Amino acid sequence: MNPIDIIIKKRDGETLSAEELQFLISGYVRDSIPDYQIAAFLMAVYFRGMMPAEIATLTRIMRDSGTVLDLSDIPGFKIDKHSTGGVGDKVSLILAPLVAAAGLVVPMISGRSLAHTGGTLDKLEAIPGFRTNLSIPEIKSLLKKIGVALVGQTADLAPADKKIYALRDATGTVHAIPLITASILSKKMAEGIDALVLDVKAGNGAIFETKEKAQELARMLVATASQFNLKTVAIITSMEQPLGNAIGNWLETREAIETLRGNGPADLLEVTLTLGGQMLVMGGVAANLDFGKKILQQKIDDGSGFEKFLEIVKAQGGDPAVIEYPEKYPSAKFAFEIKSPMAGFISEIHCREIGKISMALGAGRSAVKDGVDYTSGIMLHKKVGERVKADEVMAVAYANKKERFEDSKIRLQNAFKISDSQVKPPALIQRILGSTE
Amino acid sequence: MNPIDIIIKKRDGETLSAEELQFLISGYVRDSIPDYQIAAFLMAVYFRGMMPAEIATLTRIMRDSGTVLDLSDIPGFKIDKHSTGGVGDKVSLILAPLVAAAGLVVPMISGRSLAHTGGTLDKLEAIPGFRTNLSIPEIKSLLKKIGVALVGQTADLAPADKKIYALRDATGTVHAIPLITASILSKKMAEGIDALVLDVKAGNGAIFETKEKAQELARMLVATASQFNLKTVAIITSMEQPLGNAIGNWLETREAIETLRGNGPADLLEVTLTLGGQMLVMGGVAANLDFGKKILQQKIDDGSGFEKFLEIVKAQGGDPAVIEYPEKYPSAKFAFEIKSPMAGFISEIHCREIGKISMALGAGRSAVKDGVDYTSGIMLHKKVGERVKADEVMAVAYANKKERFEDSKIRLQNAFKISDSQVKPPALIQRILGSTE
Repeated sequence: MNPIDIIIKKRDGETLSAEELQFLISGYVRDSIPDYQIAAFLMAVYFRGMMPAEIATLTRIMRDSGTVLDLSDIPGFKIDKHSTGGVGDKVSLILAPLVAAAGLVVPMISGRSLAHTGGTLDKLEAIPGFRTNLSIPEIKSLLKKIGVALVGQTADLAPADKKIYALRDATGTVHAIPLITASILSKKMAEGIDALVLDVKAGNGAIFETKEKAQELARMLVATASQFNLKTVAIITSMEQPLGNAIGNWLETREAIETLRGNGPADLLEVTLTLGGQMLVMGGVAANLDFGKKILQQKIDDGSGFEKFLEIVKAQGGDPAVIEYPEKYPSAKFAFEIKSPMAGFISEIHCREIGKISMALGAGRSAVKDGVDYTSGIMLHKKVGERVKADEVMAVAYANKKERFEDSKIRLQNAFKISDSQVKPPALIQRILGSTE
Repeated sequence: MNPIDIIIKKRDGETLSAEELQFLISGYVRDSIPDYQIAAFLMAVYFRGMMPAEIATLTRIMRDSGTVLDLSDIPGFKIDKHSTGGVGDKVSLILAPLVAAAGLVVPMISGRSLAHTGGTLDKLEAIPGFRTNLSIPEIKSLLKKIGVALVGQTADLAPADKKIYALRDATGTVHAIPLITASILSKKMAEGIDALVLDVKAGNGAIFETKEKAQELARMLVATASQFNLKTVAIITSMEQPLGNAIGNWLETREAIETLRGNGPADLLEVTLTLGGQMLVMGGVAANLDFGKKILQQKIDDGSGFEKFLEIVKAQGGDPAVIEYPEKYPSAKFAFEIKSPMAGFISEIHCREIGKISMALGAGRSAVKDGVDYTSGIMLHKKVGERVKADEVMAVAYANKKERFEDSKIRLQNAFKISDSQVKPPALIQRILGSTE
């Protein structure tokens, strides 16, 4: 077999065999096939797509490129949630302790901030001492002890995905449904879970802007997972404006803490309870979604969700003091208020742009090796549909270097649109697609 | 500027600015942009194409990536011929001395064998001692002295093309008209010529199988060249069967010598005289194509073409004895005859397959660094349309290693198709497209 022939076959729209995909992917992982050939292949997949059987095969090959966790010695139903990425999406930090408090086992492996979206690992690491790079035995020991672990992808899990993802990011081939599907599912299946809930975002802050495209991805994810007998439900949620009010690492962690304490913003709570409630349904804890959501609300009300989060932080080496007294956390050195130029209603907050501004303020990285700044970011004081007075503060930007404000001020101002008449924000939960329904 | 943004722009079908193309290509030549990003870009161009202005810009950038020869101090009209590549195409070896003998200056820069096609440089180097890697001062001195030089691409001429061509070859992105156009013209324009004749092959042994696609390429080449005021004519010639009877390095050189001596096969002679005749028209030596062809036929008949070839060989260090006495050249160690299984007419000789078999016999290379075997190859004893008796020899395969015959025998047998009724071969000269007509 020859990589050029395989690239040309895909370029010409043909279906690749399992042997051809295996040859390509394992050759890439072993460095016997160079990255430029894989880059050309990925772009050909972007244009030509893949048949469902090819996607399933690619997923299997990527999953089996490393260790597949065996959690059979850990009692309980193991379930995880994955989001396709958004702005202000701190759901994992709230959902994981709530679902664990409700009795399911949550081995959650998350990623870092990239492009305009934040990353759960960076938000967790805003907590002093919090370790996300746990070994597989450490993860298993945590799952046994407290029923949850919030960690990063180890080098052992789906290394093919890790390598291909970095290449996609550098070659403009992120937005290909076959590649997204194989990436998400290979990684998640390597966790050894029993079921998976997927938060597929739709809107201008999401990987796909249109509901149709998000739905196409959701369907492919559910269809592919079902070929591996992995119970999967995909929930399409709106990402037309940031989720919650906080964007930026520590700002989001603080908002997650507030939400666990019962003081979270309504939209963030709704998405968290829906995704988590669905997990309880799949894990057999709740008979239906409404009941699942109620159970999780109780875990907030009785403080057990917050206690579970505190337990995670302590178990993973984090400083519990900042969780109990988040007001003691240092603030960014500089802040800048964005005010409304007129009275009216917020009709739009450009989600992707807000994400990019937050990154520019210091919350993100432009390369994988870069560090992030925990306290910079944006706090929204107004959301879409809310009334605003002339000169009223709509948002506050935070940064630790004054020059970070240069472009950001005008960009942040322009990210808000004001109208005379009231605008309803789009429905948060747009569709639920599942193999188990 | 960011290479990823440029890749995505092309991926999404947008037109790139001169600045963006310059950033990408010069970054690649300087190694500041990695090959995997260029590979993804090339595949995006394969799918999305380029606007005429983008192609012209890319051509200019690639031409200007190295030295552009200044031949203004050499008297005479400078003209070159380029072929898009075929099987048995030894036209350059005959045409260059004939056109030079007719008074034009021919600074001809050729390539090596790759994939299923032969390379003029390999055929020339079959002549013991023949040097093709001349420096620019050596090339200029030859042009002044004998009016012709047959050389390889130096490192100074269009280095961007050299680098991009190798990457295209390894990434399945050879067959993109914008990239072919920029590659051919950037290289040829760096030669400092006044005019160019292009042999655009069409057929199963050519880069494009269909006449329509070949025509599309020919039109783009002529249109782009006209933007640089380079007089260019493209002639579409048939490549449905090998040109002439010889395939393989020395076998082809020998056939070229025979043709210069007036004993060449009719199809090879027709293509050579047409391309060369067109060069004489463009150079002002002939009033029309027919007259141009007649002049060149005279240069064969009076021996001056052959003498010019001998002059080139001597000037470039080659052994003139093998040109004067080609029968003294060693033969391949092993030969194998392919016979017709039945009486009838040759209806097809699969051109691309013949090229591949010749390569497999030892005439070609699978990697740029490999050497070639000069005496192996194929001699066709029958061509399309000719009558054949049962058991009559159709072709002889030559190789220096017996194991080379293993697959080749059956493949060569299968490359011939015999029919009961006579089949006319396709017209050799299919169309002439020019900016000067």
